[in-house]
Amino acid sequence: MTDNQYKNSTPREVRKLISEGKITGQTSGMCNGYAQANLCALPKEYAYDFLLFCQRNPKPCPLLEVSDVGSKLLKTSAPGADISKEIPKYRIWTKGMVRTEVTDASSFWREDLVSFVIGCSFSFEYPLIEAGIDVRNISQNCNVPMYVTNIETERAGIFGGKLVVSMRPIPYEKIVKAVTVTARVPRVHGAPIHIGNPSAIGIQNINKPDFGDAVEIKEGEVPVFWCCGVTPQSVVMNSKPSFCITHSPGHMLITDITNASLID
Amino acid sequence: MTDNQYKNSTPREVRKLISEGKITGQTSGMCNGYAQANLCALPKEYAYDFLLFCQRNPKPCPLLEVSDVGSKLLKTSAPGADISKEIPKYRIWTKGMVRTEVTDASSFWREDLVSFVIGCSFSFEYPLIEAGIDVRNISQNCNVPMYVTNIETERAGIFGGKLVVSMRPIPYEKIVKAVTVTARVPRVHGAPIHIGNPSAIGIQNINKPDFGDAVEIKEGEVPVFWCCGVTPQSVVMNSKPSFCITHSPGHMLITDITNASLID
Repeated sequence: MTDNQYKNSTPREVRKLISEGKITGQTSGMCNGYAQANLCALPKEYAYDFLLFCQRNPKPCPLLEVSDVGSKLLKTSAPGADISKEIPKYRIWTKGMVRTEVTDASSFWREDLVSFVIGCSFSFEYPLIEAGIDVRNISQNCNVPMYVTNIETERAGIFGGKLVVSMRPIPYEKIVKAVTVTARVPRVHGAPIHIGNPSAIGIQNINKPDFGDAVEIKEGEVPVFWCCGVTPQSVVMNSKPSFCITHSPGHMLITDITNASLID
Repeated sequence: MTDNQYKNSTPREVRKLISEGKITGQTSGMCNGYAQANLCALPKEYAYDFLLFCQRNPKPCPLLEVSDVGSKLLKTSAPGADISKEIPKYRIWTKGMVRTEVTDASSFWREDLVSFVIGCSFSFEYPLIEAGIDVRNISQNCNVPMYVTNIETERAGIFGGKLVVSMRPIPYEKIVKAVTVTARVPRVHGAPIHIGNPSAIGIQNINKPDFGDAVEIKEGEVPVFWCCGVTPQSVVMNSKPSFCITHSPGHMLITDITNASLID
């Protein structure tokens, strides 16, 4: 397998290249040791319902930071980072539909937005590799496959909808290790939500993910599913807030939070 | 040591006795295996700031449930329980001051209240005992000692103030075990926040707790401190919301959530 060329870069270095438009692709495999994060920025009028949604759905939506109203600058997860520029690709939503994708969201930013920074399973991919597990989307150098399931999230106010999961193929003899390694970091989704049978969670065709890229499942491997921070996008599609800015799936915020610091 | 007479009762049985006014004392040692919880009920106008406060301070304020506005009935942590009657003792607050303590808060309840149900360290006391550690407030049959520290919480909107901790004396040779056992349950405060030196966290006299009862610290024992769900009461004193209902320290909601289910 090939390591990502930014594997050993610092988050600050990579975020600078992103803000300069020099990195616009997906971020799996970058900045080994640092937590990656999903973004969902909503107008203040929706912030209470969405914060409650995250509290009621901590496995797909483990909050790392919530910004002050109108502030583009993060404080704790990536101090000083401009959330409107330091993600490789954004989606601009109105009424539950993606209107455009952009690599710089600053011209779409509004004074009433609250940014929700949510943990991402990319954070535990190197710990899996260090435990001897091939992470297929890294070895194939592509985006992780993500699927909308038939599992309902717990509703909060206007927000509700189906759970989104990411999938990594794991050899039978390494499934237990994959569970224990990821269970150690609940704030980046933690242990898997399902092992083995895609149709049991409403996935009809494992080779056609709803987001990201399909990956090869080899003989003797089982698809293992983790809750995914793209769930808010499934929920935004369903609940149709007037306006929203998210990251584009797989194109994450790379935070300054070390994975080690997330172990409770 | 003497076991609490309700050690093996179910939460439903104990909550019924509480709602009938037959139990009005502190709940440490009751319903082995079930999570206990703190209450902070605030008017809706304060709910976003307080929810954000909990998100920013997950160690003292690990949320187990947030009620819908105006609902007295819990849904997930103690399905069907009336939060205004099934706690042994309540504090009624106006402008940051305790106006009265009551054993039934239903006549003080308001249509605009949102109940925040927050994890409690009583949940991990039996796991400590099972690990061979004497939990002094259980063996002395008294309330746990709690102290206001000099540690600032992370502010959110109007809410901010000093962290409150609970203390249990632990023999030197069992400190590591006390850390690892409690680290397994981050949703009921998790690992200790301080070991050994009360003055380092602003506690002047270990024999004069701010809430609860003093306990004996024996030769060869060290005071170990955990974040405490009474922190919201320190914050309410400091931030002075117009109205608030909390439990009285040590007099907890006993939920239907098993401790085992809280292990991530």
